Amino acid sequence: MHHASDILFTLFIVFVAAQIGGEIAQRLKLPGVVGEIAAGCAIGPSLLGWITPAQILPGTPLDVLAEVGVILLLFAVGLETRLEDLKKVGKIAFAVGVIGVIVPFAMGSVWAHGNGFDWGRSLFVAAAFVATSAGITARVLQELGALQRVESKVILGAAVIDDILAMLLLGVVVSLQGGGSFDASHLLLVLAGAVGFIVVIGWGGARVMRWNSRWLDTPLGPHSPLMIVLALCLGLACLSTMFGLAAIIGAFLAGMIASETRQQHTLEQQVKPLLALLTPFFFVVTGSKIDLHELASADALWMLAVVTVIAVISKFIGGWLGSLPLGARSATIIGFGMVPRGEVGIVVASLGLAAGVFDNRIYALIVAMSLLTAMVTPPILAVLLKRSQVTQAP
Amino acid sequence: MHHASDILFTLFIVFVAAQIGGEIAQRLKLPGVVGEIAAGCAIGPSLLGWITPAQILPGTPLDVLAEVGVILLLFAVGLETRLEDLKKVGKIAFAVGVIGVIVPFAMGSVWAHGNGFDWGRSLFVAAAFVATSAGITARVLQELGALQRVESKVILGAAVIDDILAMLLLGVVVSLQGGGSFDASHLLLVLAGAVGFIVVIGWGGARVMRWNSRWLDTPLGPHSPLMIVLALCLGLACLSTMFGLAAIIGAFLAGMIASETRQQHTLEQQVKPLLALLTPFFFVVTGSKIDLHELASADALWMLAVVTVIAVISKFIGGWLGSLPLGARSATIIGFGMVPRGEVGIVVASLGLAAGVFDNRIYALIVAMSLLTAMVTPPILAVLLKRSQVTQAP
Repeated sequence: MHHASDILFTLFIVFVAAQIGGEIAQRLKLPGVVGEIAAGCAIGPSLLGWITPAQILPGTPLDVLAEVGVILLLFAVGLETRLEDLKKVGKIAFAVGVIGVIVPFAMGSVWAHGNGFDWGRSLFVAAAFVATSAGITARVLQELGALQRVESKVILGAAVIDDILAMLLLGVVVSLQGGGSFDASHLLLVLAGAVGFIVVIGWGGARVMRWNSRWLDTPLGPHSPLMIVLALCLGLACLSTMFGLAAIIGAFLAGMIASETRQQHTLEQQVKPLLALLTPFFFVVTGSKIDLHELASADALWMLAVVTVIAVISKFIGGWLGSLPLGARSATIIGFGMVPRGEVGIVVASLGLAAGVFDNRIYALIVAMSLLTAMVTPPILAVLLKRSQVTQAP
Repeated sequence: MHHASDILFTLFIVFVAAQIGGEIAQRLKLPGVVGEIAAGCAIGPSLLGWITPAQILPGTPLDVLAEVGVILLLFAVGLETRLEDLKKVGKIAFAVGVIGVIVPFAMGSVWAHGNGFDWGRSLFVAAAFVATSAGITARVLQELGALQRVESKVILGAAVIDDILAMLLLGVVVSLQGGGSFDASHLLLVLAGAVGFIVVIGWGGARVMRWNSRWLDTPLGPHSPLMIVLALCLGLACLSTMFGLAAIIGAFLAGMIASETRQQHTLEQQVKPLLALLTPFFFVVTGSKIDLHELASADALWMLAVVTVIAVISKFIGGWLGSLPLGARSATIIGFGMVPRGEVGIVVASLGLAAGVFDNRIYALIVAMSLLTAMVTPPILAVLLKRSQVTQAP
């Protein structure tokens, strides 16, 4: 009768920790998400140990709940994003995405080479500097009700571009590192697949829904539109992983498609409780991955500070340069919005560790850097967005 | 980047199968839950194999999602149940619970003994006949909008009593089977703990909320009452397992407590999308546990038919006798409402298999019986409830 009760207890702990962390952060005028990540760090293996390392391995219930949480988050963000709005900022988002990949990759590989890695390994380390994690920024934009701003559209559009480029780059560095030959035609095929997926699904799906969304009400169940778009969300999340993209890209596309339906407003209301229950798992699990022990020396902390500064500055420069046509103030918001690396940097680090490219210390360093960028960004973004709202108001 | 994608795909399959099964069932004028269980059987290991046996073991992501789903379901049912209403039917619910345990236990042990089990093992087998699974009935009552009927209150109250008695009985048969001495004082302690837990939490919690529920709005988050009651739900679900009760009892109590708040109506609305997303996992996983291979002989099917008939009749008699003061029509509804065994029978069977009391065939038999009672009940209940609504109307 009580088989799952241990895991239930962990879920309870994680959920309550997220609420307490979020509450404290908000009382300190910080975005709630910072508190949730900090709560994860506090109850994680490094400090209290209420979450064990084994509980946050890939494929564990906590990990799956976290994944579902971030998928729903990006779905909800997509629900507030119209394809038309993205198209309007398309060129700038493209520039932000591309320059925002080139600058961190260049600076990251120079730093790694300067620290004694050969060029092959340096490129691998640099790949961890590249990919923006849209989840953190999306949550901050949502918390502040800023999803309709032009800067938000640029950030979300750029995050999609960014994810495609990061995936390609990762493919290249892994094959280079594995000693395999660099197969450009294969890479082009992968690129074509990913772009094709996004264009066909995003553009085609939006058109279908705009043309007719009354069929969503055909099934007899009381929540049929919700059920259909949730199925679409899970389905596209899976499908996008099959094209080598992050699951959240598919979820974002599903939300964007659903935003064209006439049930859009109801769906937005219904998705909110789902986010409330499930996204805390994502942020707490993210925070719990910080390994403080590997960083418990002045030397390591100094290195972490340097790496984090490089990661923040390089991404900021990329985003800022790409969006300068929108004016310096918007460019600053967009530049910082692209900074969080979150789980993508962690995945690169895990691959590097598994391939023997990194040792444990550089692994911990990259993971901590990814999470620090995620912790540092929300407060800055909140201040920037509030200030520009105030000056826009009168 | 794509670590959880295999599991994501399974979640997608399960979710879509539930929707299709539910839709077909509703088109056939059956409760949706029947279709969801049948869909689970279809995609489960016995038929299509899209869910593997390893994926539904205790503690796997799918199992945890299913558990969270049924917890939220009973929480939602609790939200529509006032303590005052339960008190009014207290005596009858008690009678239904007690007689509804005695009759199936007696008939089950006689049947098992008649089939060659010694008395110790027969009592173990009979324990699998006892515990009602409130989830299935609750879902049917909810689907038909019948939660406010007096029969529903009796069924829910009796399910709580039933769970206490089943837990005690299981404790007794396990210790008898293990050759341990029968420790009555320990058992009394367990009983006192369980009853104390329910009374203190249910009665005390309801009083606190009725006295003042404005504090639920104190936190700064946008959904603070929902977050607090969800934390309460997870917390009480865990706590009730620590008192040896099913997690759903704690969830039901949490819902009942929350029903006393002034935010009750909002909460009801917010919980609906959570149920829509998560309860399908429970019913599909339940259905996928039916092992058709062990039952693929005329002999086994005949035995299954006999066992199921005994299980249905004995529980029906118990419920019917206990609730006869309400009139024959209500007693019939309540009798059938207590019939589903669902996951509790499966847990007893698993314990029996692990203890070497059963072989694989009797294990499959008991699991299939539990699930058959769950499949058979909803349509009968739906017809009975609709008919009595029609005759009540004029």
